[in-house]
Amino acid sequence: MCANGWDAVVISGSDPHGSEYPAPRWKQVEWVSGFTGEAGDMVVTADHAGLWTDSRYFIQAMEQLEGSGIELHRTRVPGAVGIPEWVAGHADVVAIDGKSQSMASVMEIRKALEKAHGESEKEFALLDVPDMLDRIWEDRPWIPVSPVTTLDEQDVGESRLHKIVWLRKFLMAEGYDAILLSALDDIAWTLNVRGSDITYNPLVISYLLVTLEDVVWFVRKENTGQPDTDTLDSINELRADGVTVAGYDDLALSIAEQEEGFRIFVDAATLNYSAFKMLSGGLGEDCVVSGTSPVSLRKAVKNQVEISSLREAYLEDGAAVEQFLYWLDTSVRSGACVTEWEASVKLTSLRSRIPGYRGNSFENISAYGANAALPHYSTPREGSAVIMPRGLYLTDSGGQYLFGTTDITRTVPVGECTALEKEDYTLVLKGMIQLSMAVFPRGTAGCQIDVLAREPLWRSKRSFGHGTGHGVGFYLCVHEGPQDIRQNFNAQPLLPGMVTSNEPGIYREGEFGIRHENILLCKEAGKNEFGDWLDFETLTCCHIDTSVIVPGLLSSEEAEWLNRYNASVYERLSARLPVEVAAWLKEKTEPVRL
Amino acid sequence: MCANGWDAVVISGSDPHGSEYPAPRWKQVEWVSGFTGEAGDMVVTADHAGLWTDSRYFIQAMEQLEGSGIELHRTRVPGAVGIPEWVAGHADVVAIDGKSQSMASVMEIRKALEKAHGESEKEFALLDVPDMLDRIWEDRPWIPVSPVTTLDEQDVGESRLHKIVWLRKFLMAEGYDAILLSALDDIAWTLNVRGSDITYNPLVISYLLVTLEDVVWFVRKENTGQPDTDTLDSINELRADGVTVAGYDDLALSIAEQEEGFRIFVDAATLNYSAFKMLSGGLGEDCVVSGTSPVSLRKAVKNQVEISSLREAYLEDGAAVEQFLYWLDTSVRSGACVTEWEASVKLTSLRSRIPGYRGNSFENISAYGANAALPHYSTPREGSAVIMPRGLYLTDSGGQYLFGTTDITRTVPVGECTALEKEDYTLVLKGMIQLSMAVFPRGTAGCQIDVLAREPLWRSKRSFGHGTGHGVGFYLCVHEGPQDIRQNFNAQPLLPGMVTSNEPGIYREGEFGIRHENILLCKEAGKNEFGDWLDFETLTCCHIDTSVIVPGLLSSEEAEWLNRYNASVYERLSARLPVEVAAWLKEKTEPVRL
Repeated sequence: MCANGWDAVVISGSDPHGSEYPAPRWKQVEWVSGFTGEAGDMVVTADHAGLWTDSRYFIQAMEQLEGSGIELHRTRVPGAVGIPEWVAGHADVVAIDGKSQSMASVMEIRKALEKAHGESEKEFALLDVPDMLDRIWEDRPWIPVSPVTTLDEQDVGESRLHKIVWLRKFLMAEGYDAILLSALDDIAWTLNVRGSDITYNPLVISYLLVTLEDVVWFVRKENTGQPDTDTLDSINELRADGVTVAGYDDLALSIAEQEEGFRIFVDAATLNYSAFKMLSGGLGEDCVVSGTSPVSLRKAVKNQVEISSLREAYLEDGAAVEQFLYWLDTSVRSGACVTEWEASVKLTSLRSRIPGYRGNSFENISAYGANAALPHYSTPREGSAVIMPRGLYLTDSGGQYLFGTTDITRTVPVGECTALEKEDYTLVLKGMIQLSMAVFPRGTAGCQIDVLAREPLWRSKRSFGHGTGHGVGFYLCVHEGPQDIRQNFNAQPLLPGMVTSNEPGIYREGEFGIRHENILLCKEAGKNEFGDWLDFETLTCCHIDTSVIVPGLLSSEEAEWLNRYNASVYERLSARLPVEVAAWLKEKTEPVRL
Repeated sequence: MCANGWDAVVISGSDPHGSEYPAPRWKQVEWVSGFTGEAGDMVVTADHAGLWTDSRYFIQAMEQLEGSGIELHRTRVPGAVGIPEWVAGHADVVAIDGKSQSMASVMEIRKALEKAHGESEKEFALLDVPDMLDRIWEDRPWIPVSPVTTLDEQDVGESRLHKIVWLRKFLMAEGYDAILLSALDDIAWTLNVRGSDITYNPLVISYLLVTLEDVVWFVRKENTGQPDTDTLDSINELRADGVTVAGYDDLALSIAEQEEGFRIFVDAATLNYSAFKMLSGGLGEDCVVSGTSPVSLRKAVKNQVEISSLREAYLEDGAAVEQFLYWLDTSVRSGACVTEWEASVKLTSLRSRIPGYRGNSFENISAYGANAALPHYSTPREGSAVIMPRGLYLTDSGGQYLFGTTDITRTVPVGECTALEKEDYTLVLKGMIQLSMAVFPRGTAGCQIDVLAREPLWRSKRSFGHGTGHGVGFYLCVHEGPQDIRQNFNAQPLLPGMVTSNEPGIYREGEFGIRHENILLCKEAGKNEFGDWLDFETLTCCHIDTSVIVPGLLSSEEAEWLNRYNASVYERLSARLPVEVAAWLKEKTEPVRL
């Protein structure tokens, strides 16, 4: 920094595709700071190093940054100062790695610098230094080259040719010559391909250019080492469908070939700044139009094949989780020494027996007692806590299957619980049930019903600091947009076919943590004189423990919902379970009496 | 239009100050179309005349426009095409009356014209024709010159000098030389003046210029006819406080006197386009900065004097409404012939006996049976419906008092009700109670809790098409911002001291209508590890009829709230009521049993 005359360096926690979970090559924040949370960006100046992250990771960041001299900057809290404003107030010459920053995030930094320096009438510079860390990160990993597979139309409900025709209709309707897809799940969805370049996310690191005539996939697969047979078969299948497969770095060449006036649509949120600069340099600024990728919304609305498969995925996944909960219950209560790590391993092993299992959809959270107060606790392989026969145990986990992506959280008593644990458990559950029962008119956005999951806690002046729900992909990312259920304004209405989580919680630092999470499918619920109605079907099929519920806190409607749900879990799963587990589940799903 | 070569004329339903209720001079839409709703704008072209209004007025507009050839354009419905887009698609030369259109609304029309004509590469013109209708509206009323009064610091809790010092601090902090207040309630609040230039709103038609040195009030009071003693005294009092009183039309002169570089802050939503053009012509475009008036938020947060006075206002007002409901109940049940109009007159007469009464805060809604299905029904003086001893009667009304503004809706059975009426009555009440009981963290906006009032109806696939709550002024407008409780995103958080209505409803065209409305004061509710909590105190003090409630539909929490509320109404009001009314109220407030 000194040699280059830079006042500040911004280090992004993302990759060239705006991914939530980057491949090791782009775990730059972790490499610099040791912080392993899934969301975090850094700024380093001559006399300050700061990490910006949100409430999910406050406790983890404080622990991991301890002694490092790196300061934690809390985001999404009242009065929070984001990286753009902070940098603008502390530096004149700012270096970024335009390859790992989205164009949108760089624009925000530029705007903040312009504002701050306009007021003080000082000069500023924003320098793009692609792959900046290459100079000091000696053994920096390369872009992965893991195998690629394709999915059949019968597995995903729509062929890639059909999806490309739809994209071309979008281009014609909007007057563009091409769209450059940069979000990796948009690309995987469009091409019906899956990979494993990124842990937990079945994605292939690549760009996809769809013009009115051509489809070009820029990907680092063929030209490195020895691609496997499956990958070669997949690439051949794509070529047969008219997809040109080019090198990952050949995008610039392809753009250079275009004629003057070639108008391209890009997604500002996921396209990296360096690629954006290359496009606008080559085509002219007016020819690069940024907006929200149309794939995002279409991908979120699951088709009938995906919905049927997801129902099956949640049955299979639920049966695995039930077997896990049975094992945990009987082991801990019999006095066996079980650690959080062992529990996590057990859960993964039960999931892995399901045909079509392709790994977990994120890192298992297996948290006992006070560890569950960290909403995104990372269970250590060595020295994880022993699960004692008292209090609450929380597991948040999910699987990737050829026929769907799952995500479920269950908090269960492993022994005697305190009155406060029981009360919190019941209030969080009330919120989850209220949202599950919601009926709403078409056009309603997630932020307009989010409070249903919060108000039972708020009434008792308790709350949780994270969103209530995120979209879930179909054998894709466990977090996907564009819809969500949270307090932040997001105008995207919930649509029939969307799959969204419902996961209120409560976290008491040093004591315990509770979260109940089901996955909801938005469905049509009829039309009448008052409107066109939607509601939710709960996809998750795994009982909710009733033994620690405070019955007086449940309304009769809530108790009815819970009893109906638990009964239906038993009915749907018992035949899929070993007899002893089914017998245990029968007891566990006895109705609650108020 | 033909002679001038105009393709379209836009006729605004507002006045030069963006008022909700304009003085007769600016009831242009009513003069042209006969439509008397409180929200409506028109566009006339050579072959089309259209009225744009929202769902509150759909039925009324259809009735009043029948046979006129004027087409109803529905706003705030899915797929609605607003005036800007419609005009842009149907006209090249558009005339507006810049005096009665806000600068913001004209900018929207300009933007739509630019967009539509940019695409088709056709020329367009947007012409400002101030007081356009003067040419054809022969007996058009003048700007009113009704009396002006001042309020003491002890009545409103803050002196005008203190408010002006606060405004100057805003100017200095933001780097402006002046602020031009254009919203009439902003001006009345700042100067602690009230008038009666506009029916139901105690306002004075004027502009207020506050610079770092001067305060100039542009108002048509002295220079016309014979001002009354009260007005002269008020003006002298203002002068003694350093306020210069100038003519309503002298704003341009005052602006012309300013030095180069004089920067003025204006409110785009309420300043009319003609005045904005005059300002930017005189000072230069860069010197006129538009934003949201800071007075709006400060005025919405009531101080301790205002809050104490409002509590008293709602007790007095509630006692009047109780006497009215007693009179209605005994009259109708005894077989007397009572019309909606007579009921309305009775209610006003009971309110007018309250010391400090200064008129109604809006036109009484007195609606029986199917008439109540019009959320903003206007009771006709002649031929209004007779209230029969069956079904439901709805009254939505309010008073202006020296010590506050009130607004209340009660729907009461006047005889036997149908099962559907009872069910709807109970579901709407559940919504009102749920919102009343809400607890929420500081920072929560109205749109984030709006669903609490809707979900009980939504669960039964029923709904209402209007907002749940609007701000209420202090002896000012019955509708004021910036906060509200509705589905539309409005980032303004609810703050302690804000007064907002809570009025869910249901409307079945041709059958009946139900609305329950209480007024809520937002209050601090303590801090803890989870946050800084707020809740509501219900200011409205008037019992809610329990005789038509379907007990099985109320939760025990809701029934407890209702019983507590009704008991407290009796306790607080009985001493203020005639004995026979108090005895009747005692019976009416007996607890509901589930």
